[in-house]
Amino acid sequence: MASVVHGYPSTMQDDYQLTMGQLIRQAVRSFGDTEIVHRNSHGTWGRTTYQENFDRIERAAAAFNKLGVGLGDRIGVMDWNSLRHYELYWAIPAIGAVFTQLNLRLAPEDLLYVINDSQASVIVIDETLVPAIQPLAERTKGVKTWVILSEGEIEHDLPNAVYYEELIADAEPLADWPNISETSAFAAGYTTGTTGRPKGVFYSHRSQYLHAYNTVKDLAVSVEDVVMPITPMFHVLSWGMVQVAVMVGAKLVLPGMFSAETLGDITDALTDEGVTVTNGVPAIFTPMFEVLKSKGVKDLTGLRMLCGGSEPPISMINAYRDTFNAEVVHGWGASETSPIVTVNRMRPTLRARMTEEEIRSYGSKQGSFPVNVDYKIVDGVGNQVPADGETAGEVLLKGPWITASYHGMPSEALADRFVDGYWRSGDVATIDENGFIKITDRLKDVIKSGGEWISSIDMENLMVSHPKVAQAAVVGLEHPKWDERPFMLLVLKDGEDITREEIDEHLLQRFAKWQLPEEFKVVDEIPATSVGKIDKKVIRSQYQDLYT
Amino acid sequence: MASVVHGYPSTMQDDYQLTMGQLIRQAVRSFGDTEIVHRNSHGTWGRTTYQENFDRIERAAAAFNKLGVGLGDRIGVMDWNSLRHYELYWAIPAIGAVFTQLNLRLAPEDLLYVINDSQASVIVIDETLVPAIQPLAERTKGVKTWVILSEGEIEHDLPNAVYYEELIADAEPLADWPNISETSAFAAGYTTGTTGRPKGVFYSHRSQYLHAYNTVKDLAVSVEDVVMPITPMFHVLSWGMVQVAVMVGAKLVLPGMFSAETLGDITDALTDEGVTVTNGVPAIFTPMFEVLKSKGVKDLTGLRMLCGGSEPPISMINAYRDTFNAEVVHGWGASETSPIVTVNRMRPTLRARMTEEEIRSYGSKQGSFPVNVDYKIVDGVGNQVPADGETAGEVLLKGPWITASYHGMPSEALADRFVDGYWRSGDVATIDENGFIKITDRLKDVIKSGGEWISSIDMENLMVSHPKVAQAAVVGLEHPKWDERPFMLLVLKDGEDITREEIDEHLLQRFAKWQLPEEFKVVDEIPATSVGKIDKKVIRSQYQDLYT
Repeated sequence: MASVVHGYPSTMQDDYQLTMGQLIRQAVRSFGDTEIVHRNSHGTWGRTTYQENFDRIERAAAAFNKLGVGLGDRIGVMDWNSLRHYELYWAIPAIGAVFTQLNLRLAPEDLLYVINDSQASVIVIDETLVPAIQPLAERTKGVKTWVILSEGEIEHDLPNAVYYEELIADAEPLADWPNISETSAFAAGYTTGTTGRPKGVFYSHRSQYLHAYNTVKDLAVSVEDVVMPITPMFHVLSWGMVQVAVMVGAKLVLPGMFSAETLGDITDALTDEGVTVTNGVPAIFTPMFEVLKSKGVKDLTGLRMLCGGSEPPISMINAYRDTFNAEVVHGWGASETSPIVTVNRMRPTLRARMTEEEIRSYGSKQGSFPVNVDYKIVDGVGNQVPADGETAGEVLLKGPWITASYHGMPSEALADRFVDGYWRSGDVATIDENGFIKITDRLKDVIKSGGEWISSIDMENLMVSHPKVAQAAVVGLEHPKWDERPFMLLVLKDGEDITREEIDEHLLQRFAKWQLPEEFKVVDEIPATSVGKIDKKVIRSQYQDLYT
Repeated sequence: MASVVHGYPSTMQDDYQLTMGQLIRQAVRSFGDTEIVHRNSHGTWGRTTYQENFDRIERAAAAFNKLGVGLGDRIGVMDWNSLRHYELYWAIPAIGAVFTQLNLRLAPEDLLYVINDSQASVIVIDETLVPAIQPLAERTKGVKTWVILSEGEIEHDLPNAVYYEELIADAEPLADWPNISETSAFAAGYTTGTTGRPKGVFYSHRSQYLHAYNTVKDLAVSVEDVVMPITPMFHVLSWGMVQVAVMVGAKLVLPGMFSAETLGDITDALTDEGVTVTNGVPAIFTPMFEVLKSKGVKDLTGLRMLCGGSEPPISMINAYRDTFNAEVVHGWGASETSPIVTVNRMRPTLRARMTEEEIRSYGSKQGSFPVNVDYKIVDGVGNQVPADGETAGEVLLKGPWITASYHGMPSEALADRFVDGYWRSGDVATIDENGFIKITDRLKDVIKSGGEWISSIDMENLMVSHPKVAQAAVVGLEHPKWDERPFMLLVLKDGEDITREEIDEHLLQRFAKWQLPEEFKVVDEIPATSVGKIDKKVIRSQYQDLYT
């Protein structure tokens, strides 16, 4: 983009800073009687209000200052979706410190890396997570104080540990809230890529403020809503749902830890508290559907369930609509994008020219781009793909809540992740004439053959629809002439056999001849990762010399 | 507020500029098929889409460049709520010029002042307004070109005039959109105070962008809505309604000129086009109610009618609710505040503890403050008044869409209008324990007696409820001991007579003894302004020596 030029001066208060400190104080001021319903890690529910709880936020902020952390310092936080976690969302940025989210699902070595890379000097941790982090404590470099979130004293071996409740009981409410610049970092998250170390994204007050405005807009959230973030608050700040609720003054339900054990309890809260906005991944919403049904719930009209992480099955979207009149809203984003970019909300002009069936199948798309986000979808040589809903390209993004770099990454490493000021998402998508995208692959799962792309995931999905096939995996292997060519592994159903002709005939329904696998192999088992996904790295390395 | 301090650097794209150019391009990109329905000054309706119309915006932008205006220049615009007016909203800021709204209701001398103060070098004007502006043309100082909006050639005496339609027909679409800084002015409005010359407020791209996000939030506007701005687009940009619609991709209905003659036509559009969001003043919505009723309209569920300018009568709010299930949303603001500050939307916590009657009477309040706006309500010596719903003070405001100065005003004159970075609204209000304000007076209508304030408007309203009284006017007159003391003029109903005791008995229902008028006088007629408001300036000057 061209460099910024200045026009005629405005008379407005353009130096007014958009900060989290302003947001919480103004929300408490205007919506003080709004309720917060919360569940702690012992499973006990409680109730408070924005106003009543604010005293704890102000004390926590002052307590951190007393611990010697303040403007610009990083404070690590590891907790479930609790009331104390909510308090820390505000208390830490209030003093200009950086709320550094520690993802408790990370491998220990990665967690250690995040703590040390962020140079957190204080770490705040829920009592249930102390056993997991204790073994790492002595290898953390800069941590001076551990702060334990608990209902009382607990047994532990953490050095220099204090109890949060004692800290805030001893503190006076913060007397002076600093006027932080909106471009300062207020929180940090680390991406959890499957390769390499986690990469730090430092969100600014401004980026989060604008992201919240955008989500309020795209989900039409208002003071009439009741917001329950199910997505963990250590996953991209639960997609900003807490900030969204506070911005409009909506009642907030903080359900604590989400797990198979707590599912029933949290589902009760969904209906009893009248939740109208929530978020989660298909792996959460799928079992939740069964629980809601088994409880005899009939109507959840008005409920919007923002669903991301991976593609929700159309059958699940339809089931929620048909059974409860609830809307599963399909969205897409990443840690680097705060995270919400596209949201799938049908607009009247589209609805008017589609059949009911088309409308329903459209739910599998990730949605369209909001104002304030620029994008390009480009092929392997950087040309924009046509908006035909078929040609796939990598999604590139620019906007005020998109990252411009990674924490501490040298510029030569950054060069590969950004192009012309756009962040490279690594996600491959088509875009249709209505501006709706459909994510087809991760870039690394696309097979680049002769300058063209072949979707390994589309091919796998088609192949498993063959009556003889139980499982299919497709990878690109290095090829001297075409860069890469597809290779397919198949697990067949018991007693079945398959020929090359049968495979080709099946795949030619949707693929061109040149896209068909160069070779295939029937195996007993496909290499998988610890969470059951196809491990393409292993397959590629096992067969790396096949075409060379 | 404390000066800005910088925390830890973020990694985000914090230099991404929030501009009107970005907004329109991204909206066209994402909601290109959204309709715009429009009415020209001949009464002819037309239809287009965001996408189809965009070519005209790009041509208009390039055409202005060809006229020699660009970055930082001011372009005056005088038009009804037309499609061309909409195009100018975007084409002018696209090239970094300032859309300078010319309020066609201004007195000719004031209009001339605005043109010269803004140093507009091009003025764009609708054909119907040419006769009014022609006599001023030779006294405008910097205007090089007049651009006429019309359906064809017209007769006129404007020097250096060109036709807009010819200009854009001859232009190529703008090739390069400059990357304007968000703190540059994108539009200018002039306040229409009753005293002194109009004062210029220059809105920044940033202030308007954030104001639009705020309105989308407060009215929960979405792509499902149909927005029809009735408030003239030359009155504080029709309160930002066009930007709001475009931000969410909502269908836009531009009703042209609103008048007694067009009321029926525009009311038809309201129902036929399925309008769900509109705006106006009580003087518009009151006759509109009768028209809707006479047409046999039964149901306008979902319609939000943002009402400002002056206080909508509770009876009107109730009538819209009871007859059509439409919501008159009471709001408050000023030219200096972009303009929306408070909006009266009942929140669930309040509704739960009020009776239906209380809820209804609450509609007469102006609402509560949104996040992103700081306020103080202060008495005559600068102390904040208690939130008791009774004690009145002047409303002071701070926020990203509040003005920080007036165009070209010397700092000694500004000192009186700002205090500690807050803009002094000149409006006097109470605030209750729920954060809802009630505007009681303009500061100049408050009587300052012995350091305390007396509401002249409350006293007038109470006095006219006396069975013998037809009209009442209360002003403060200079007093050697108490600074000011109240004085009352009364017009009685035919054949009636009133005593001092009767007046006091009536006023003591709500006023303290010290607040009662020092003297009163029965007259045949109360001095009034040209628009029928009580002319307090005249009363004060007629009786200025009464107490001295």
